[in-house]
Amino acid sequence: MTPEKPAPISRRERPAKPALTRQGIIDAALAILRDEGLGKVTMRRIAAALDTGPASLYVYVRNTGDLHAQILDSLLGPVKAPEAGTWRDRLKALLVSYGEVLFRHPEIARMAMSTQPSGPNYLALADAILGLLDEGGVSGREAAWAMDLLLLHPTAVAVEHSSPKSATQESDEFSALAAKIATADPARYPHIARLGDTLVSGDGPSRADWALDVILDGVLAAASRASAEQRGW
Amino acid sequence: MTPEKPAPISRRERPAKPALTRQGIIDAALAILRDEGLGKVTMRRIAAALDTGPASLYVYVRNTGDLHAQILDSLLGPVKAPEAGTWRDRLKALLVSYGEVLFRHPEIARMAMSTQPSGPNYLALADAILGLLDEGGVSGREAAWAMDLLLLHPTAVAVEHSSPKSATQESDEFSALAAKIATADPARYPHIARLGDTLVSGDGPSRADWALDVILDGVLAAASRASAEQRGW
Repeated sequence: MTPEKPAPISRRERPAKPALTRQGIIDAALAILRDEGLGKVTMRRIAAALDTGPASLYVYVRNTGDLHAQILDSLLGPVKAPEAGTWRDRLKALLVSYGEVLFRHPEIARMAMSTQPSGPNYLALADAILGLLDEGGVSGREAAWAMDLLLLHPTAVAVEHSSPKSATQESDEFSALAAKIATADPARYPHIARLGDTLVSGDGPSRADWALDVILDGVLAAASRASAEQRGW
Repeated sequence: MTPEKPAPISRRERPAKPALTRQGIIDAALAILRDEGLGKVTMRRIAAALDTGPASLYVYVRNTGDLHAQILDSLLGPVKAPEAGTWRDRLKALLVSYGEVLFRHPEIARMAMSTQPSGPNYLALADAILGLLDEGGVSGREAAWAMDLLLLHPTAVAVEHSSPKSATQESDEFSALAAKIATADPARYPHIARLGDTLVSGDGPSRADWALDVILDGVLAAASRASAEQRGW
């Protein structure tokens, strides 16, 4: 198991290390995230992957929390609303695209939920949502609060699926729930018994699409109430 | 370090241990949860608190996951809708009461989000929501999906506040966000710049109440669309 000693290479003949860049650090972090999970995405681990010392990273990233926030922001770069369509269709497409990023990176979704992201791509996403709501006639407080609610829902759905359990375990849980519903005592749980299988109907994307429409319809109702109140003053 | 050997006590003279009960196990678990966090709520730790061996607990609780699920269910016992009021007021009060339990136990909220609870009190909560929606004219698929969405929102809000960070840190994050908003470049983020402080307006309970009304208005719109479609068939 002792490797043959390599011939010594002069420092000048070694290939030059690539220069450190913020994007290079984020890319290394994303590779570790994909392969080993968010818990391993530490300054020390990234420094090792980039063949440098942790101290060199601090020029670009303040600490592990900041690093995770920068990963989220980097993932949000490609999240854009399509150019064509009604404001509502474009807004829904934008939120679905945001949800897909979080769904692919459930640990990042958990982080997005418990910290307040504020990177440039997150701000651009928030700004785009506010712009589309404005096109739809939703402004002021209603737009501000709607933006929060619209971003929270896809994040929550991604977090629902973020626990590190196997597909088998998830399907076992689902079967256990379906069995509970099928055998619910109608005297004790009359409404569950009445609805039966309808309670577990629909796949994830159908339910998410329905939920976005429900929230948007509710936001439009709130906006028209708010503008009626304003006219009344 | 060798302790003096205690005088032997006959088994008959020792005070009798209280009999193990499911509720006794849950109460011990809740005390550990409050004092030391969910990570410490293990079968071994509870057995020690109850002065018994872990094996004795398995009659009542299958494993740590089951234990956590039983804690959630036990906390939901007092969550009931008020008897008086419109269906909408009673439903909102029920969801606020559910949200308060999760807000007081953020680690349980995280668990409620990533596992599918199915204990008797959770089923009773789901049944009560379906019953109130039915009173409001929401039935079938719309009621099933609305129940999910209505339970997800308070859970997500509780999880947003569940990370084990200090109040100072949370307020720092908020200030950082407020500063980002106040100094947002109007050329790059025109809608954020336009809304300014409105984006951070409102306290948690006002926003949660607004969100529940938005979701309920959207659900009512979905229900009336569904029943119009049904009449069309």
